[in-house]
Amino acid sequence: MKLATLNDGTRDGKLVVVSKDITRYCAADNIAPTLQAALDDWEHCAPKLEALYRDVEHQAVPCERFHEREAHSPLPRAYQWADGSAYINHVELVRKARDAEVPESFYHDPLMYQGGSDNFLPPRADIPLGNPEWGCDMEGEVACITDDVPMGVSVADAADHIKLLMLVNDVSLRGLIPGELAKGFGFFQAKPSSAFSPVCVTPDELGDAWKDSVIHLPLNVDYNGEPFGRADVGQDATFSLADLVAHAAKTRPLGAGTIIGSGTISNKGEDGGPGKPVSQGGAGYSCIAEIRMIETIANGSPSTPFMSAGDTVAISMNDKDGHSIFGTIEQKVVSV
Amino acid sequence: MKLATLNDGTRDGKLVVVSKDITRYCAADNIAPTLQAALDDWEHCAPKLEALYRDVEHQAVPCERFHEREAHSPLPRAYQWADGSAYINHVELVRKARDAEVPESFYHDPLMYQGGSDNFLPPRADIPLGNPEWGCDMEGEVACITDDVPMGVSVADAADHIKLLMLVNDVSLRGLIPGELAKGFGFFQAKPSSAFSPVCVTPDELGDAWKDSVIHLPLNVDYNGEPFGRADVGQDATFSLADLVAHAAKTRPLGAGTIIGSGTISNKGEDGGPGKPVSQGGAGYSCIAEIRMIETIANGSPSTPFMSAGDTVAISMNDKDGHSIFGTIEQKVVSV
Repeated sequence: MKLATLNDGTRDGKLVVVSKDITRYCAADNIAPTLQAALDDWEHCAPKLEALYRDVEHQAVPCERFHEREAHSPLPRAYQWADGSAYINHVELVRKARDAEVPESFYHDPLMYQGGSDNFLPPRADIPLGNPEWGCDMEGEVACITDDVPMGVSVADAADHIKLLMLVNDVSLRGLIPGELAKGFGFFQAKPSSAFSPVCVTPDELGDAWKDSVIHLPLNVDYNGEPFGRADVGQDATFSLADLVAHAAKTRPLGAGTIIGSGTISNKGEDGGPGKPVSQGGAGYSCIAEIRMIETIANGSPSTPFMSAGDTVAISMNDKDGHSIFGTIEQKVVSV
Repeated sequence: MKLATLNDGTRDGKLVVVSKDITRYCAADNIAPTLQAALDDWEHCAPKLEALYRDVEHQAVPCERFHEREAHSPLPRAYQWADGSAYINHVELVRKARDAEVPESFYHDPLMYQGGSDNFLPPRADIPLGNPEWGCDMEGEVACITDDVPMGVSVADAADHIKLLMLVNDVSLRGLIPGELAKGFGFFQAKPSSAFSPVCVTPDELGDAWKDSVIHLPLNVDYNGEPFGRADVGQDATFSLADLVAHAAKTRPLGAGTIIGSGTISNKGEDGGPGKPVSQGGAGYSCIAEIRMIETIANGSPSTPFMSAGDTVAISMNDKDGHSIFGTIEQKVVSV
C-alpha cells in the first residue's frame, strides 16, 4: 500500500491512503490520525489501512485528488532518524580524492550517524541556507521506517521490522563537515533538516524489485532540471537496509517510527573505477560531492560548485513500467 | 512549576503537575494529555499549568501521592536529544590521560552530538547491558527542554526558549567509543538509551541558582550507595545551556520538545589540576571514565572498573535547603 501525510496545519499532518498511481487519496483518520499513531499500533492498523488501500484501488470509497505539493514528509517529525553509508563506493571516492585507504572494517561494520529528526522539510519545501560558504549539497538516498525493534535483533529478524520505504534528500553542508568531523563527535550543524518523498510504501509494492532488503531500481536525481544521477540502488550495496537496522539496534531497542537511511546511492563505473556522468552514458551521481571527488581525482581540483540560492534538485524513482513509486522530492535552495 | 509524566501504559505517559516538595500530584489531562502536547502549544498551556501548580501548592485541588518510581522520563520519547560538552575539564582530563592537547577551538565552539531519542529509560529503570566488555558508564548531567527555536537564534534569545530543566544519566558504553569515533561519524552504538529525572521544572523554580542559563548547585552522583560526585554545575561551565541551544540551532530550527544536555558535569581541583574524590574532600566525578583518567594520570593505568551487572547509580540535586528539586534517577545495571 501507499501512504502519505497531508499538511493540514498541524505538526504531524493527516494520514491518508494514496492510490497506486498516486493521483487520488482517501483520509485514514478513522484508522489512525497520523502515520506515527499508525506505527505505534502497526499490527492493528496495517490490516485496516491495507483494506482501505484495496478500496481506494477499486474506487470503492470516495477519493480526492492527491497533490504531491500538499504532502508533508511521511513523518513530518520522527523520534529517530539514523543514516547509514551502505554504498562504500561513495566512501572509496572520498578517500581516493585525498589519497587515503578505506579501512577494511568499513566492509563489514556499517558507518551510521544519528541525524536530527525534530523538523523534516516537506518534499516540495525550499532548502534554507544561511551562508553560501556552508557548501550545500543534496544526497539522494532510500530509507525505511520500522516498528518497534528489540535490542540485539538479528539481520534476518530485522528485515521483518521494515514496514515502509521512502526516498530521502539528506541535505548536507559540506563546508561544515571537515571541522565537525575533526572535533570527533560526528555531524551536527553539517546535517540540517532532510526531506522525504511525498509517499511511502510497504515493501510488497515493489514486487520483484525488493530483494533481500535492498531496492533494485535506479534512483533518479535531477539537478537544475538535467539528469544528474541514475544510480541503481540494487548495485554496489555493501549493506542492506536490514543490515543497517540490526546495526542500529545492537545496544538498544528502536522505537516504532524509527527511520533508517541507506546513505548516498553510489555506483562504480563499468570498469570498477569512478562512474561516468549521465551525459556520458554513466549512472552519474546522487550528490555533488561525488562529481567533485571525481573531478579532483581526474584534474587535481573540483570544478562543479555546491548548491547556491536558486539551484534545484529533484529525486524520484520509477517502477519498471516508468511509473513514479514515491512521488518526487523537488527542492530549491533559498538564502535566509 | 514542576511537571512529571506518569507511566499509564501508553508510550507518552500522562502529564501531571507535581507539588514543590514532590510528594503530591494533580493530573493535567484537561490542559494537555502529554508533556509533548504541552510543549507543542506552550504559550497557551504554560499559564494554565502554572495556575494548576499554584492550586496544587495551596491544596486547592485534590491531589494524589506522587511516587518517583511511577514516573517516566518527562519526555518518554522525544523528537530531539542533543548533548553538548560544556565542562571542558572533562575533555582536558581525557586528553591529558593520553598526553594530547585540547584544541583551542573547543573553548569557543561547543562539542555536541546528536543522541537517540526514540526510547528513553524511565528514571528508575534498569540499564540493560548486552556485554560487560562494552564498558558501561553513567554520565551525570543537566539538560533543558526548548519550545520552537528559530534557525540562527542568538544566545540571548536562545535563553528565552529554555522552558524546562531536568537531570540526565547519559549512559555511555566506553568500550565502543574508540572504535566508533575512529570511524568518524560520531557516537551511535556507544550511546544507548539515556534516563532523565522523575521531575522537570521551569527555570524560575531554581530562584537565584539559575543565572545566565547555568544552574548554580551541586549535582549529587552516588555510586553503589556511596557519594561519588558532588560537582558544582555552576563551576567550570565553559558554555551555558543558552550557548548550547544557539549552537544546535545554527543551521536549522529546533522543534518544540528538543532536549539539549550540558555534557558530564566536571570540576577542576582547588589547585586547577585534576579534582579529588569525594572521600578526600573533593567534588568527585559524575562518571567513572573521569576517575579512571585521574588514576591513569597518577598511576599510569586505571583501577576503577566500569559498571557491571548489579552496580547502581543515583543522580539528584538539592536546593540550598537540602530539598530534592528533580527527584532521583536511580538505576541498576542488568545483563540481558
